[in-house]
Amino acid sequence: MLDKALEYAHQNQGQFLSQLKEFLAIPTISTLDENKPDMQRGAEWVAAQLRSLQMDNVQIMPTGGHPVVFAEWLGAGKSAPTVMIYGHYDVQPVDPIELWTNDPFTATMNGEYLYARGASDMKGQMVASLKAIEAIRKAGDLPVNIKWLLEGEEEIGSEHLEEFVKNHKEALACDVCLNPDAGMIAPDKPTVTTGLRGLAYFELRVYGPSKDLHSGLFGGTIHNPAQALIELIAGMHDKNGKITLPGFYDKVRKLSKKERADFARLPIGNKELIAMTGVPALWGEPQFIPAERVGARPTLEVNGLLSGFTGQGSKTVLPAWAMAKISCRLVPDQDPQEVVKQMKKYLKEHAPKTIKWELVNLHNADSALVDTDSIGVKAISKALESVWGRKPYFKREGGSIGVVAPLQRHLGAESVLSGFGLPDDNVHSPNERLHLPTWYKGIDAFIHFFYNF
Amino acid sequence: MLDKALEYAHQNQGQFLSQLKEFLAIPTISTLDENKPDMQRGAEWVAAQLRSLQMDNVQIMPTGGHPVVFAEWLGAGKSAPTVMIYGHYDVQPVDPIELWTNDPFTATMNGEYLYARGASDMKGQMVASLKAIEAIRKAGDLPVNIKWLLEGEEEIGSEHLEEFVKNHKEALACDVCLNPDAGMIAPDKPTVTTGLRGLAYFELRVYGPSKDLHSGLFGGTIHNPAQALIELIAGMHDKNGKITLPGFYDKVRKLSKKERADFARLPIGNKELIAMTGVPALWGEPQFIPAERVGARPTLEVNGLLSGFTGQGSKTVLPAWAMAKISCRLVPDQDPQEVVKQMKKYLKEHAPKTIKWELVNLHNADSALVDTDSIGVKAISKALESVWGRKPYFKREGGSIGVVAPLQRHLGAESVLSGFGLPDDNVHSPNERLHLPTWYKGIDAFIHFFYNF
Repeated sequence: MLDKALEYAHQNQGQFLSQLKEFLAIPTISTLDENKPDMQRGAEWVAAQLRSLQMDNVQIMPTGGHPVVFAEWLGAGKSAPTVMIYGHYDVQPVDPIELWTNDPFTATMNGEYLYARGASDMKGQMVASLKAIEAIRKAGDLPVNIKWLLEGEEEIGSEHLEEFVKNHKEALACDVCLNPDAGMIAPDKPTVTTGLRGLAYFELRVYGPSKDLHSGLFGGTIHNPAQALIELIAGMHDKNGKITLPGFYDKVRKLSKKERADFARLPIGNKELIAMTGVPALWGEPQFIPAERVGARPTLEVNGLLSGFTGQGSKTVLPAWAMAKISCRLVPDQDPQEVVKQMKKYLKEHAPKTIKWELVNLHNADSALVDTDSIGVKAISKALESVWGRKPYFKREGGSIGVVAPLQRHLGAESVLSGFGLPDDNVHSPNERLHLPTWYKGIDAFIHFFYNF
Repeated sequence: MLDKALEYAHQNQGQFLSQLKEFLAIPTISTLDENKPDMQRGAEWVAAQLRSLQMDNVQIMPTGGHPVVFAEWLGAGKSAPTVMIYGHYDVQPVDPIELWTNDPFTATMNGEYLYARGASDMKGQMVASLKAIEAIRKAGDLPVNIKWLLEGEEEIGSEHLEEFVKNHKEALACDVCLNPDAGMIAPDKPTVTTGLRGLAYFELRVYGPSKDLHSGLFGGTIHNPAQALIELIAGMHDKNGKITLPGFYDKVRKLSKKERADFARLPIGNKELIAMTGVPALWGEPQFIPAERVGARPTLEVNGLLSGFTGQGSKTVLPAWAMAKISCRLVPDQDPQEVVKQMKKYLKEHAPKTIKWELVNLHNADSALVDTDSIGVKAISKALESVWGRKPYFKREGGSIGVVAPLQRHLGAESVLSGFGLPDDNVHSPNERLHLPTWYKGIDAFIHFFYNF
């Protein structure tokens, strides 16, 4: 059965690729209102795929935001385990659009790579799981029961997913969740992710005068809101790069010797990061190595800045307002809701009386650690070893995937975090891409995975 | 003759207004490449006006940037003084365009105000001087010789004007320059401006990774360029609001007791500034009153900020670059070129090795003090008193007018800084406007002015 499924997958790579291109053509940008109809089209495309796999109960289910696509196949019987397959059909915005070499929604081949928004994060990963199931179905019955939980709000923080999980506990009940929204260290290094950072995302707005003023006629008497915003943000780190929000580190779990040894083995060092990013030198807490800083330390980053005149040339304006998008990556056992309170407290303590401010908490996600002894992690480890011929690396990743903590909390389901994206796939950046040889191996690995229970 | 000129002006207010509207319809935004053809149209409109006044040698003269419109009338003879009339036909950009109530280039009446970009700064003032001369011409001969120096680059720092003045010393030779690009304190308070601040305008760019990165996958190892920019700008002021560029205050002239007494008499206090700007509280150096801070103290302001994702919602990006527009208002005897060096020195000393930076000096202007005993200041003071029935206020203004220092330097010509803009005209802001009753009085005052030599 396994061989027959693998053979089907190998013979149909062309078909798999053309369907991925079809999916990538739908601009499912969840954060923009203008793409709402595309989000619906994206959900329908996914539902049609599930119907063609002869899944049962294929449904596009409403949430407070974008819909969830659900489906199941329980033909393996009650004695067999139930594996949930998670995915998200939404993608990040495409700006700065001028830096894309091709249209982000016209998937374009170049060498071994397919370029498009969502190619790696994570339409490619979703199609890999769909096509693995298709191959197994063609070869015979599925060895396990399957449920699908495919959301449209991962890139905006999975805001409505926890409530959805809580409201559909019975329908979603499962033993383990395959979550391919986590990547590999390198094409030759199969990887299982064992931890994710959480997130608290803010928009901080500072208001000064009621309208833009002439900087000459008023400068020196008015607290420039861009200046006030800069002062507030500058104060959020101390001289050593530590974050100053009150109580921010109180619940940060200390790394054990074993954990530090695991981090030290990962091939994510100065050299690799500088080559990958093009920065002149790395930055960060000197008492932790880069892999620890990404995997196990919290951050506070400015994701966007806007104020005043930003066009060509000069305008001597004293701006009426300034805005920053700021997000904290969180680690166990930080609680995003507490971080929101810490941010508010910081602002109340530090904002001067010369301006007004407003904090919008755009979204939050819990951090998560995965039980490496779960049946799912064992099944994927064996599958990766079968395809790559070497044991996988275990790593903690710096990103956030909103669904992982709610599944643990409400369903008791451990996630298996293994997908086939690569660090230089330009996810969230212009020219996002997917390495096709790795993708085809990934489909093989997913086929193995389902036979490993 | 005076009465006849004033009568003509009063009878032709409707015609004056409709010509002003025509001028305001030309979007002469000097800083934007796309408006270059409009700049040419603006220059031609002005030249046509000068021709209709039967001026001699009307010329649109090239500079390294936008052209200068020149004209003269020397019929008063060698024994009469020569008055140069300065103006600029360029305007500021209009963004944020969404805050305008009407189209910025379709002049719109509302109550006593005419709303349009440039209505106050300074097409209204230019048309006032053109129409004053028209009225005098209709009444008889001009009592003085006249030269016109009308530039198209004031709003971008008059970059090419000093060279133009140097290259045309003979053609531009004059005794005094009427410069209406300075405003009044209030409609009932005729004002002569006796000082202007200088300017050094920068764009500071900070570069980090070669492209936008995923803030989760790299956050903690890369110095966020928005953060680095914020740290650099935050350090440009100390805790007491003093500017930290090395040597910045070395040449700032101390205020005399007499000067401080003059400032104390101006009706520009806490109450007025808060009412005018809508800020919760004023800001600035506590050892100086607001009028001194605007008129006689240097500043460093952020005019614009841009980095990363600034759209709706959230994007967890670690941006590749960040940019700020920063400008210093300068006072006697600060030298803009020295301030450029101080800014570079500050950045060299403080920029971390984790980022790259680039400083562009967009433009500079010298500060200026006016000789209040000049024949021009006496003529305008008498004219203002004739129209308003009270002696004018003398004030030092916070803005910069690039032409004033070069005229002093190369022609030995003192400027008379008196126009009829008001502090709440929204210059450089959305909904710029002109108070028409004040404007008509201003035309009268200019007519008086030319008869006062």
